[in-house]
Amino acid sequence: MKNNKIGMSHGAGGEVMGNLISETILANLSKKSVNGGIGLDALDDGATIPLENHEIVVTTDGHTINPLFFPGGDIGRISAAGTINDVAVMGAKPLAITNAMIIKEGFPIEDLSKIIKSMDETCKEADVGVITGDTKVMEQDKIDELVIVTTGIGIVEKGKAIRDSGLEVGDKIITTGSIGDHGMSLLSFREGFGFETDLKSDVAPVWGMVEKAIEIGGVTAMKDPTRGGLSNAINEMASKSGVGIIIQDEAIPIKQQVKAVSDMLGIDPYEVANEGKVIMGVKADLADETLNAIKKDKYGKEASIIGEVVEGKRVLIETPVGGQRILEAPIADPVPRVC
Amino acid sequence: MKNNKIGMSHGAGGEVMGNLISETILANLSKKSVNGGIGLDALDDGATIPLENHEIVVTTDGHTINPLFFPGGDIGRISAAGTINDVAVMGAKPLAITNAMIIKEGFPIEDLSKIIKSMDETCKEADVGVITGDTKVMEQDKIDELVIVTTGIGIVEKGKAIRDSGLEVGDKIITTGSIGDHGMSLLSFREGFGFETDLKSDVAPVWGMVEKAIEIGGVTAMKDPTRGGLSNAINEMASKSGVGIIIQDEAIPIKQQVKAVSDMLGIDPYEVANEGKVIMGVKADLADETLNAIKKDKYGKEASIIGEVVEGKRVLIETPVGGQRILEAPIADPVPRVC
Ligand SMILES: Nc1ncnc2c1ncn2[C@@H]1O[C@H](COP(=O)(O)OP(=O)(O)OP(=O)(O)O)[C@@H](O)[C@H]1O
Ligand SMILES: Nc1ncnc2c1ncn2[C@@H]1O[C@H](COP(=O)(O)OP(=O)(O)OP(=O)(O)O)[C@@H](O)[C@H]1O
Ligand SMILES: [Mg+2]
Ligand SMILES: [Mg+2]
Ligand SMILES: [Mg+2]
Ligand SMILES: [Mg+2]
Ligand SMILES: [Mg+2]
Ligand SMILES: [Mg+2]
Repeated sequence: MKNNKIGMSHGAGGEVMGNLISETILANLSKKSVNGGIGLDALDDGATIPLENHEIVVTTDGHTINPLFFPGGDIGRISAAGTINDVAVMGAKPLAITNAMIIKEGFPIEDLSKIIKSMDETCKEADVGVITGDTKVMEQDKIDELVIVTTGIGIVEKGKAIRDSGLEVGDKIITTGSIGDHGMSLLSFREGFGFETDLKSDVAPVWGMVEKAIEIGGVTAMKDPTRGGLSNAINEMASKSGVGIIIQDEAIPIKQQVKAVSDMLGIDPYEVANEGKVIMGVKADLADETLNAIKKDKYGKEASIIGEVVEGKRVLIETPVGGQRILEAPIADPVPRVC
Repeated sequence: MKNNKIGMSHGAGGEVMGNLISETILANLSKKSVNGGIGLDALDDGATIPLENHEIVVTTDGHTINPLFFPGGDIGRISAAGTINDVAVMGAKPLAITNAMIIKEGFPIEDLSKIIKSMDETCKEADVGVITGDTKVMEQDKIDELVIVTTGIGIVEKGKAIRDSGLEVGDKIITTGSIGDHGMSLLSFREGFGFETDLKSDVAPVWGMVEKAIEIGGVTAMKDPTRGGLSNAINEMASKSGVGIIIQDEAIPIKQQVKAVSDMLGIDPYEVANEGKVIMGVKADLADETLNAIKKDKYGKEASIIGEVVEGKRVLIETPVGGQRILEAPIADPVPRVC
């Protein structure tokens, strides 16, 4: 291995992290799936364990977001929504999360209360329980405020889990809403533009919306475009499915302010994290119906069909003037500590 | 709340942590159990979610141990064994763990490899898969080396989970082995006695041993005596069960070196963490048979019946010379950052 130390990009959801996971983690583990379920080698949003007529869906995420309170949410909301969403994009109904907290000595108990309340509100939206947890404290200079690790547990009928690798040629690609809100709002808040814009994170639990889409019956693949953003999610879906994708640039919903801040800071809004969006592949004949179902949900109002699946193995993006370029998977999310 | 900031003892597994969990966490959560399973209010080693003829058992633990490599194990082994054991003491077969890592920028990838290998070895012992995970990196001065949060998933036949609150008057109390090894070895290693003693951590996955005990059919309650040690576990079992316990001091297996280091440092070995032991209540008529089954396991050779359940609500400890004293639950584990 050329670089023998961990760098920030090893935790930033792109190619560098992917290599670390393959070479250092997957390569050293023997048993990576249970009872024929979806295991670690699939590198999907979660794993499954078949049990009787169901599959238990399991997913975990650490939350090291900085700052803890940001426009549109806080670490409590993102910790709950994050794992709820990874369960949801496996096509499973989220039932419960676990709550492991690593707290800095000296942390205000009042803030902890606020964070738990926010986690609770988010769970209530999705009718998810917080059923077990753990509390550790580290010395003042040993941790930055608070880290929360949540694990989400859901269930799906056996064989009905939705993979990120299920795209088929002809499928339409839907985004359930505008792209780049979380990463760009967090960055602009950190840079001190916080009070000049009303840009805020999209962090939200999306199971209700996903359920409406699945019911139509045409969803072939899903992923939540978190670290590495749309570019990462869509490239992963394409390469795992062994297909190409053509995206229409002007069909991608993007807020004016997100665009403005992106241009100003020179950061690609398609590479930054979203925390309340889903990218899905849908059979062409059910695409409009699925889109309409999504739009009925409060988190899906700006949903849009942004492209379609083709033969090949590249994600191409077409500009309104007729140009075409490759939409590459990012090396790493350009905004650090975003979730 | 008198103390409005988090202190080290809020993460140290005794009364102070218990109060924080009740007042700040439980009090702010609405949905704490799912489908009638064992929920958060039970404050047991894990929670359960009923599904068809089974209950899914879920438990989570953060691991902030310092140092990462210690005599008898490392953070990889303790992260796997910790959640495997919390699943096991719920009476459930552990199937899988999740692996969320929070890594410091600059951390050697070689050490990460060693830690994953050790996690893998530990999982193999218990035939447990590592099925999903997460990787985050924090800046050099924002985290102490590495934190690992694992969540354990297991299954048990519906209604067969074993609570920590199931003790009944007349039951015998068994410890599956010597007490204090993990906490005292870690402390003496930190204090620099590491090379003068062969004291080492007992960290091990105990499902194999627990399974043998359960098969006999008399186990009424179980707990792994981690933070806060034997004193904490036994007091929790007694108070949740609404019973008293009388322990024979000389029946508690304790290694000579653990005793020596405890005396030297003035630390009660019954209050420090164990990482490969179980305290169980067993029906009196099956106690000897259960003990023999446990002794057949490699981790149970020093198992011993140490006391019995009586009417009342105190844990009393009898000394060989006939004295009796109350064995109090600790305020906090006296050794910090032990798991
Ligand atoms: N430390 C780890 N150990 C085991 N598996 C890991 C680890 N880190 C990541 N993985 C696996 O790699 C895949 C990609 O992980 P990633 O965290 O990017 O997914 P995600 O949770 O959907 O995205 P995000 O964390 O940005 O929300 C997942 O299948 C995950 O289980
Ligand atoms: N931050 C938290 N959020 C929700 N529940 C928590 C939290 N911290 C602890 N709990 C709950 O409190 C109870 C006691 O937790 P504790 O961590 O002491 O149990 P344990 O894992 O068996 O012990 P140890 O962590 O020492 O191995 C458990 O039921 C756990 O689910
Ligand atoms: Mg995901
Ligand atoms: Mg995620
Ligand atoms: Mg715990
Ligand atoms: Mg326990
Ligand atoms: Mg534990
Ligand atoms: Mg993740």
